Amino acid sequence: MEELPSLQRLIRQLQRLPYLASKNVYRVAQHFLELSESQREDFCRILLDSCNGLCRCPVCWAWSEKSSGCMFCNVSRRDASLLCVVESWHDLQAIEQTGVFKGMYHVLGGVLSPLDGIGPDDLSIEQLKKRIDGSVKEVILAINQSPEGDATSALLARSLKSSGVVVTCLARGLPVGIALEYSDRLTLNKALLDRRIF
Amino acid sequence: MEELPSLQRLIRQLQRLPYLASKNVYRVAQHFLELSESQREDFCRILLDSCNGLCRCPVCWAWSEKSSGCMFCNVSRRDASLLCVVESWHDLQAIEQTGVFKGMYHVLGGVLSPLDGIGPDDLSIEQLKKRIDGSVKEVILAINQSPEGDATSALLARSLKSSGVVVTCLARGLPVGIALEYSDRLTLNKALLDRRIF
Repeated sequence: MEELPSLQRLIRQLQRLPYLASKNVYRVAQHFLELSESQREDFCRILLDSCNGLCRCPVCWAWSEKSSGCMFCNVSRRDASLLCVVESWHDLQAIEQTGVFKGMYHVLGGVLSPLDGIGPDDLSIEQLKKRIDGSVKEVILAINQSPEGDATSALLARSLKSSGVVVTCLARGLPVGIALEYSDRLTLNKALLDRRIF
Repeated sequence: MEELPSLQRLIRQLQRLPYLASKNVYRVAQHFLELSESQREDFCRILLDSCNGLCRCPVCWAWSEKSSGCMFCNVSRRDASLLCVVESWHDLQAIEQTGVFKGMYHVLGGVLSPLDGIGPDDLSIEQLKKRIDGSVKEVILAINQSPEGDATSALLARSLKSSGVVVTCLARGLPVGIALEYSDRLTLNKALLDRRIF
């Protein structure tokens, strides 16, 4: 490898991509090497162009087209009294794909993680507070269940308390289709505690 | 998604990358969107530059620097009488990392696969035949065990027969560290058939 500096540089660039297993970095490098020069240039051009065509909506922090504006905030048929707070844009996508939720979103851009140096100022918490005016009736915290996620939810709930808005979180219990005997203790515990009248 | 054409284009480009799970395409898109414009441009520039700095060695088909030539063919301390035929460049890497093999390599660039439209002319078989002159004593077929790989090995063995060179293949048997009870039937069968004097 030391004798192939260009290949080393290529590998090092590809290693920066998240979610690409180290075993597969060489295969992706091979893929790029086997493309023609013009195909590689096309790939890079489209990558740059499409990234530059997008920006974060200054209100809800979701990705939006620079040319047309936010697809959630600028739509009058969505229910502005419901605000769903999600960690990231792909969590937003997951909720949107259910087709059930018709309220507004707010993308935090991550969760509190002191070990990674992510504090409240790195998230869009101030933007969220600004949105809580008279029109919002309920804030749904749809943040993943992890130590960091739970801490973020707690902080948000506390800081939204004074505004008098109803703060809810997603139901926790048995997922659809799971057999009782295979579900983990914590989930079963939650499902028992949060049992509801049939 | 239909309302974010730039994002759709970005996703579609990333979907062309092999070995990137579809669940992760959105995360990689997010990664690129979160980079600054200059970081994205650096990524593309290095990708293009390093790919353009490499070419296939016309003799052994391994990747080599355009500026300095092949790191295997141009080295006099390697044993030119041994020729190891591999499917791809990462198989070559795997063998090279053992540190044991000091002969020459020949990269086929794939295996015969009629369903994918890959025939003998798409592989570097003609180049391999040209290399079999008086100096090569043994050709080691280090091709993966698959229906396609076995067919390719068989074709190579047949077409090299007339040249009088010794054609061998890698030993097949129990891998190091595996317990007999967990090894599959085919491997155990091979290991029994190819047993050797202790």
